Amino acid sequence: MVTNYKEYVNGVDQRIGTLFKAAPRPMGAYGNLVQAVSESSSLDNKYKELMALAISISIRCEDCIAFHTRAAINHGATKDNVLETIAVAVEMGGGPGAVYGAKALQAYTDLVT
Amino acid sequence: MVTNYKEYVNGVDQRIGTLFKAAPRPMGAYGNLVQAVSESSSLDNKYKELMALAISISIRCEDCIAFHTRAAINHGATKDNVLETIAVAVEMGGGPGAVYGAKALQAYTDLVT
Amino acid sequence: MVTNYKEYVNGVDQRIGTLFKAAPRPMGAYGNLVQAVSESSSLDNKYKELMALAISISIRCEDCIAFHTRAAINHGATKDNVLETIAVAVEMGGGPGAVYGAKALQAYTDLVT
Amino acid sequence: MVTNYKEYVNGVDQRIGTLFKAAPRPMGAYGNLVQAVSESSSLDNKYKELMALAISISIRCEDCIAFHTRAAINHGATKDNVLETIAVAVEMGGGPGAVYGAKALQAYTDLVT
Amino acid sequence: MVTNYKEYVNGVDQRIGTLFKAAPRPMGAYGNLVQAVSESSSLDNKYKELMALAISISIRCEDCIAFHTRAAINHGATKDNVLETIAVAVEMGGGPGAVYGAKALQAYTDLVT
Amino acid sequence: MVTNYKEYVNGVDQRIGTLFKAAPRPMGAYGNLVQAVSESSSLDNKYKELMALAISISIRCEDCIAFHTRAAINHGATKDNVLETIAVAVEMGGGPGAVYGAKALQAYTDLVT
Repeated sequence: MVTNYKEYVNGVDQRIGTLFKAAPRPMGAYGNLVQAVSESSSLDNKYKELMALAISISIRCEDCIAFHTRAAINHGATKDNVLETIAVAVEMGGGPGAVYGAKALQAYTDLVT
Repeated sequence: MVTNYKEYVNGVDQRIGTLFKAAPRPMGAYGNLVQAVSESSSLDNKYKELMALAISISIRCEDCIAFHTRAAINHGATKDNVLETIAVAVEMGGGPGAVYGAKALQAYTDLVT
Repeated sequence: MVTNYKEYVNGVDQRIGTLFKAAPRPMGAYGNLVQAVSESSSLDNKYKELMALAISISIRCEDCIAFHTRAAINHGATKDNVLETIAVAVEMGGGPGAVYGAKALQAYTDLVT
Repeated sequence: MVTNYKEYVNGVDQRIGTLFKAAPRPMGAYGNLVQAVSESSSLDNKYKELMALAISISIRCEDCIAFHTRAAINHGATKDNVLETIAVAVEMGGGPGAVYGAKALQAYTDLVT
Repeated sequence: MVTNYKEYVNGVDQRIGTLFKAAPRPMGAYGNLVQAVSESSSLDNKYKELMALAISISIRCEDCIAFHTRAAINHGATKDNVLETIAVAVEMGGGPGAVYGAKALQAYTDLVT
Repeated sequence: MVTNYKEYVNGVDQRIGTLFKAAPRPMGAYGNLVQAVSESSSLDNKYKELMALAISISIRCEDCIAFHTRAAINHGATKDNVLETIAVAVEMGGGPGAVYGAKALQAYTDLVT
């Protein structure tokens, strides 16, 4: 049970940083993919991060939830934006969407303050 | 291999319609959940449908891809919007995101005309 | 789009039969596992097959839906039993549970007659 | 590593309670769906909860395992019922079904006492 | 039901080719990632393609199964290699691993001739 | 957040051992399946364990990652082998593959020493 997602996401950063150093060629290419996705212009990056959050909840990836909740906040997502993203995940995922959505809400609360 | 998603989504509609008739109480409640998700107001329904599409690609649900591509179009999503949604799904899903994203692109092309 | 699950499940049988012949040692061991699961006695096999169907819908495995709908019918599952199993899958899986549940309902209808 | 699922499920309750309060309209609709699923009558709710548990193990949702193991116990599920549900999940999920099934067994043991 | 995976994989190629043309920046970056993965040298690419096939079976991605079975063949994978990869997927995925493994075996048979 | 995978995998062993004792018939059959998979001879068991690890990362099963990283090490897998397996999982799974791949790398580091 995660007690604070601020600490938790630091752990995610450290672990993924270790992987980037250990495997610079494929992880660098993955980094370029992330960069390329952020550069397109018909959708604001806030919406892309909320999409990534919706996916993270749907596939039950806790590290991803922490990471993309933070990114969504950094691109200006509000609490209502996050709650409506969670609601889409419940529509598309039922009870498991709700329990992982509840983690996203806790992550939002922990990270926004 | 789906040859035309316009026909395909009609098949999805029929099948889901049969389920609603056969199980009106739980499916009616599910319909109310869908309705509730669409009523919230901080995110335009276009973005919610693109999120649902991003999830559909990520979890490899072809019926869902057909259904939510059509819904996204009905809420004003452009080809660029769909392509950027696919790109997020590739970032969050690699090769499987790409092959199911390619189905979403075909669905968009079939359904928009 | 499957037009008849009776034919479809024959295709599944053939394909899995080919795999059993090609890899008799691991597939025989898998067959023993299936046998072992069916032998336990606190739950009737009808319920075990409905559980397997609920899982099949939830993980979006169409071959599994066809296979376990047939097995559930063979162990006495009624249409109401199948509909309530689908309802659990919708509670636990939202829209994707509904569209794959709709396939299970079609499979039931095709296979029971 | 969860040390006690009794405490753990309290955490799940709190988190999901926070989500219900923050998003009352969609979560209320989801609650109605759960209610509707429980009202149908051809399958006892014990079997529905065991199905939900089988799904929870199969999709590797630990919060769901804790939640539905408790619900199954509340509807009269025995240890043998839970073990046979786990066995179905192993048949339908191999090794990952076994390790998450082992969590369900621990949850049963923690929650039944 | 796929009747011939040789034709089927051509359809996958076409669809993914359309996506690369429509979204050259992110898909080009994804292509670079694929390239980077193939360049590392401690594991022969035959094993990497068999791993990709094992993943494809496990996540039930039929397009991916067709694609990576072909790639594995192109890197020298034998029928026994493919059968042992399927066996690992059954160990790690139970019945759904078996039915999608059976598709991989059909794909191998269709594509090798 | 796992602090040491050496301890963690002991917990996995204990829990799965408890399940084997509680359900000896189906779990014994599953054990035979695992044995059967290891006996085939066209692929060294090191590669089979790396495949199992690739699947474990792709399906986000942390217990499985710990278990199969240890098994891969026991069959002679090097750090480069594990890193290339992670790279395949990123190609086939994007960001979620990266964060769970990062757990596999930590598991390797914790377990090899």
